[in-house]
Amino acid sequence: MEKLKEIRSYMDENGIDTALITTPDNVFYLSGFKSNPHERLLAVAVFRDAEPFVIAPKMELPDVQAAGWTGDAVGHEDTDDAWEIVARSVKERGIAPSLIAIEKSHMNVERYERLRELYPEAAFTGLDSKLNAMRNIKDEAELEKLREAARLADYAVEVGCREIAEGKTELEILTAIEFEMKKKGVSHMSFDTMVLSGKKTASPHGKPGSRKIQKGDFILFDLGVVWEGYCSDITRTVAFGEPTAEMREIYETVRRAEQAAVEAVQPGIRAMDLDKTARDVITEAGYGEYFTHRLGHGLGISVHEFPSLHGSNEMELEEGMVFTIEPGIYHPEITGVRIEDDVVVTADGVEVLTQFPKELQIIG
Amino acid sequence: MEKLKEIRSYMDENGIDTALITTPDNVFYLSGFKSNPHERLLAVAVFRDAEPFVIAPKMELPDVQAAGWTGDAVGHEDTDDAWEIVARSVKERGIAPSLIAIEKSHMNVERYERLRELYPEAAFTGLDSKLNAMRNIKDEAELEKLREAARLADYAVEVGCREIAEGKTELEILTAIEFEMKKKGVSHMSFDTMVLSGKKTASPHGKPGSRKIQKGDFILFDLGVVWEGYCSDITRTVAFGEPTAEMREIYETVRRAEQAAVEAVQPGIRAMDLDKTARDVITEAGYGEYFTHRLGHGLGISVHEFPSLHGSNEMELEEGMVFTIEPGIYHPEITGVRIEDDVVVTADGVEVLTQFPKELQIIG
Repeated sequence: MEKLKEIRSYMDENGIDTALITTPDNVFYLSGFKSNPHERLLAVAVFRDAEPFVIAPKMELPDVQAAGWTGDAVGHEDTDDAWEIVARSVKERGIAPSLIAIEKSHMNVERYERLRELYPEAAFTGLDSKLNAMRNIKDEAELEKLREAARLADYAVEVGCREIAEGKTELEILTAIEFEMKKKGVSHMSFDTMVLSGKKTASPHGKPGSRKIQKGDFILFDLGVVWEGYCSDITRTVAFGEPTAEMREIYETVRRAEQAAVEAVQPGIRAMDLDKTARDVITEAGYGEYFTHRLGHGLGISVHEFPSLHGSNEMELEEGMVFTIEPGIYHPEITGVRIEDDVVVTADGVEVLTQFPKELQIIG
Repeated sequence: MEKLKEIRSYMDENGIDTALITTPDNVFYLSGFKSNPHERLLAVAVFRDAEPFVIAPKMELPDVQAAGWTGDAVGHEDTDDAWEIVARSVKERGIAPSLIAIEKSHMNVERYERLRELYPEAAFTGLDSKLNAMRNIKDEAELEKLREAARLADYAVEVGCREIAEGKTELEILTAIEFEMKKKGVSHMSFDTMVLSGKKTASPHGKPGSRKIQKGDFILFDLGVVWEGYCSDITRTVAFGEPTAEMREIYETVRRAEQAAVEAVQPGIRAMDLDKTARDVITEAGYGEYFTHRLGHGLGISVHEFPSLHGSNEMELEEGMVFTIEPGIYHPEITGVRIEDDVVVTADGVEVLTQFPKELQIIG
């Protein structure tokens, strides 16, 4: 498998003989097996000079294989000392670890102390930055899943628009959307679905409730699905009946800002400059103080991952990075508007994954 | 606050001058503030000889106070080094830590190394077992929240039963339940709601889907809500139309097993013996091989916490412990049945929090 090969050459270059990957998202990334093991041990063990193995709770072993892992998989039960089993499997491979790579931002002190007991002569190093760098760049198989997740998010917004009717509550619309997603085989939304109406749209972290929508409202959908382990995240703001001129102006400002940032995406542009591209449009229109958050965030196995699109991130974008572009204006007296797309940096520009129209949709 | 006082006397007894609590659930337990900070630092710092403080992302400080924390609260922004701010606040209190307690099963190696850099002379110890022991015994304020969470779970099952009708899918019933809960102000279910019908009830981890329910099915609801930070977890199995004699026999066996375990609850009984009480009933009826999991699990801020009610746990139950009792029989050719209550160990026996009837309900 390509990804394991890349880990191994990194190990080669850095004199690492043993690597233990324990973040559930990274275990999924390397093995295809997604699970939340809670306090139980789940890890991929990779060696410079031997075959890798997965260690997982015994009852999950069939799922490890079903997920496509063709290597060795060892199980442990609640009455076992899982670390003894790790040590035995390492020994069986003829490995005596001298430099062990772990995920320092994930492994807890209890496990670390246990490992140091098992291998008192070994040194430890972090694998975190290598894994982050790898996950930052999506390959074609990952992009295919992200595209499908985005298509489902588009459809979810379509369902939401269809449900809009005088007197319906935010929660009723939300429930209809999630029900339709479940019927499409989506087992989890990528975060709590947001359906906000009227002035509530002006709260970037508002909570859907029993407010009944009414003519003249903007309605904001912010939602995403998890599809084969990959997340989407879309925001659209639509009008129920005729909006006022002020509402239209805010909408069009956000739309221009969003479009400007999307069009500026290409390899080599810095994250901070992309943020500035959108922010300048909003500031020049006089709404700068109402755009209160960063431009966007990376998207993949996690709904928030690298890169972060904020005003002081000097990182240059590269082909294969996937992130959201989601400027907003939150005017407490008029309305809130946010428009969010999921985009991929391509060799010569950008691929936009979310396709729901951005021209102001006026419903009813 | 009582709980902080208890932490402080533990620190006194063990010569700990500084404690850093970082698990979101334990931060909530000690401060009343519930938040998932992701990679950002959120902690309660407790001292033997000085006032405690909460450190949290700056934008969340108003929520910390709104949650009832009356002590000091310091904020950090993404551009700050949060640990520098911790060190400064510790220093301002005139504390030079020499023995620092951390949650070893939660703190990651990256943070631990940072702490050891900040305090190279200090020793470190775990606070985990003390916190687990405290959370194991619920006080009256916690019980009040657990009671309300259980009442809402009862109501959710009631809603589910009302929704049962020929041709409806599991997902339709599930959606109606969750919608009603949201209307009651429940923002999160405590885990993925389960509505299974027909033979699917025989899978303890089955997934609700588009199967249409039909007369002669058993329908299994397993669900819970989070209420003011505390979880409930109920299972009821009901009949849609007349069940067969075999189905009835399985149902009554589970009911007798569950009832026997509930009635056996009292201070001093061992967890393993409670498991055995229910298991014996099922085994004697000839279904032992179909009861494939432990009797139950602790319940509180987490939906799975201590104590664990399994066949080799010798822990004696104590007044104030809260857990589920949930025997089941999963017969692939006939049906699955599980009945689950949330119970509290009282001074002289048991208080059952979930109240939905356990006599077989025949609907339609």
